[in-house]
Amino acid sequence: MDARDKAALFRKYHEGPDLLIVMNAWDAASARIFEEAGAKAVGTGSAGIAFSHGYPDNEDLPRDVILAATREMVNAVDVPLTADILTGLGKTTEEIVATVKDVIAMGACGINIEDSTEEGGVRLFDVAAQVEKIAAVCKAVEESGVPIVVNARTDSYWVKIGDDVQKLRASIERGNKYREAGAHCIFVPSASDRVAIRTLCAEIDAPVNILTVPGCPTIPELQELGVRRVSQGSGPVRASMALARRIAKELLETGTYRTFHEGSIPYPDANKLFS
Amino acid sequence: MDARDKAALFRKYHEGPDLLIVMNAWDAASARIFEEAGAKAVGTGSAGIAFSHGYPDNEDLPRDVILAATREMVNAVDVPLTADILTGLGKTTEEIVATVKDVIAMGACGINIEDSTEEGGVRLFDVAAQVEKIAAVCKAVEESGVPIVVNARTDSYWVKIGDDVQKLRASIERGNKYREAGAHCIFVPSASDRVAIRTLCAEIDAPVNILTVPGCPTIPELQELGVRRVSQGSGPVRASMALARRIAKELLETGTYRTFHEGSIPYPDANKLFS
Repeated sequence: MDARDKAALFRKYHEGPDLLIVMNAWDAASARIFEEAGAKAVGTGSAGIAFSHGYPDNEDLPRDVILAATREMVNAVDVPLTADILTGLGKTTEEIVATVKDVIAMGACGINIEDSTEEGGVRLFDVAAQVEKIAAVCKAVEESGVPIVVNARTDSYWVKIGDDVQKLRASIERGNKYREAGAHCIFVPSASDRVAIRTLCAEIDAPVNILTVPGCPTIPELQELGVRRVSQGSGPVRASMALARRIAKELLETGTYRTFHEGSIPYPDANKLFS
Repeated sequence: MDARDKAALFRKYHEGPDLLIVMNAWDAASARIFEEAGAKAVGTGSAGIAFSHGYPDNEDLPRDVILAATREMVNAVDVPLTADILTGLGKTTEEIVATVKDVIAMGACGINIEDSTEEGGVRLFDVAAQVEKIAAVCKAVEESGVPIVVNARTDSYWVKIGDDVQKLRASIERGNKYREAGAHCIFVPSASDRVAIRTLCAEIDAPVNILTVPGCPTIPELQELGVRRVSQGSGPVRASMALARRIAKELLETGTYRTFHEGSIPYPDANKLFS
């Protein structure tokens, strides 16, 4: 399948009726395993990339580290892969568009672009400025001829801009503005209440992406609420780190190996995944 | 602690009486988690590096991928880190010595160098040629002024050169020759029988490193048998991949999140590990 067809397929996955589960990987191994387990699509996650390369998850994570890790994940799988590019890996609209062109050239089928920053205190970007960025990104996507999915993230919940009503209202307002600017999907991480999710899906005129945080409804429930796409963010990589901790604790404290021997993937099978 | 002191400390860990547990990491996150869990030393492993960057574990894994991953792991921890350099990441003795100088310059406190290849069929290198390599490596280490640990691996068990007696005899013979060439520790992966391990420790005139494969005695038992160092090879990374598979299967098949929510490391704690 060529890059255009794969991106078009990824867009189609957002049309329903089935909810699309994007599995968030942090390296080529997790991406490949998710594909092998049956994921229809894989997404990168900035936190996982940061941790696996030794950085905290913030805007100091070098652009080249993110892009190199993204390329390894794209190359590791045949299914569509969508790239987390944070706020765009650049300050200016031109730099952000350059990032998008880079990930399209790698073979990515989508991007996540977010509207908050931690610089100078956690805050949402001005909505007009974010709309301008998204419009420029969507124009670049159209010009590329590769119909990737622009997943515009609003951090109105994460940034805790106010009470439940304010967070919901801001997410709907921003979501619809980003949609008008050309975004194909609206990502509202941290919304987990059933009424809020149903309202987001009803009021935002685009497929809605929800993050499966603790307390989030199950996949069948989310589908019933109208959600079109889910992702897990840093959940899987943090579970993997917790397993590494349990392996070490068992070995160092009791001198046994159960945690890493039981249920492990045999070496020849692991090797075969990458052959 | 400067590089010399850290390498000297790592050498001292091989003198006993406690058995040294080197935790085998595959990326900066696992290295840092192992350190945080109490590991006195971390080792890289070629299989884990290969998988996490999307390669099978063989001699096609690019030198620069291995060295970049090694550097990230060295930088992620304060404890001594030993680098798996496979057969030396070069064909000639000069190239192998250059690799050793590179990893010393990064701040690594040890190397693993192995005596088998898969090129042209799995086989052990000629013993005289391997002795020459190890001698050149040890000379370069001495000249560097940084007393890193040269862990010479013999694959007499892995390569299945014959019956149990032949594997044991070859490991002892090669182990002692590598020791005479200057190696500080002898690594005999895949030996797991108690009598064999006790014999290796008694007959090889150097600290012996055993791999904790399934069926291997526990740490207290290995210590009683005379083992001075253990490592896990690709066990932990394959367990991590198995967890990723279980996370995906649960999410894709039952639509729930237990496998990655339960016992996970909270996001702020994960972030703090790298700050």
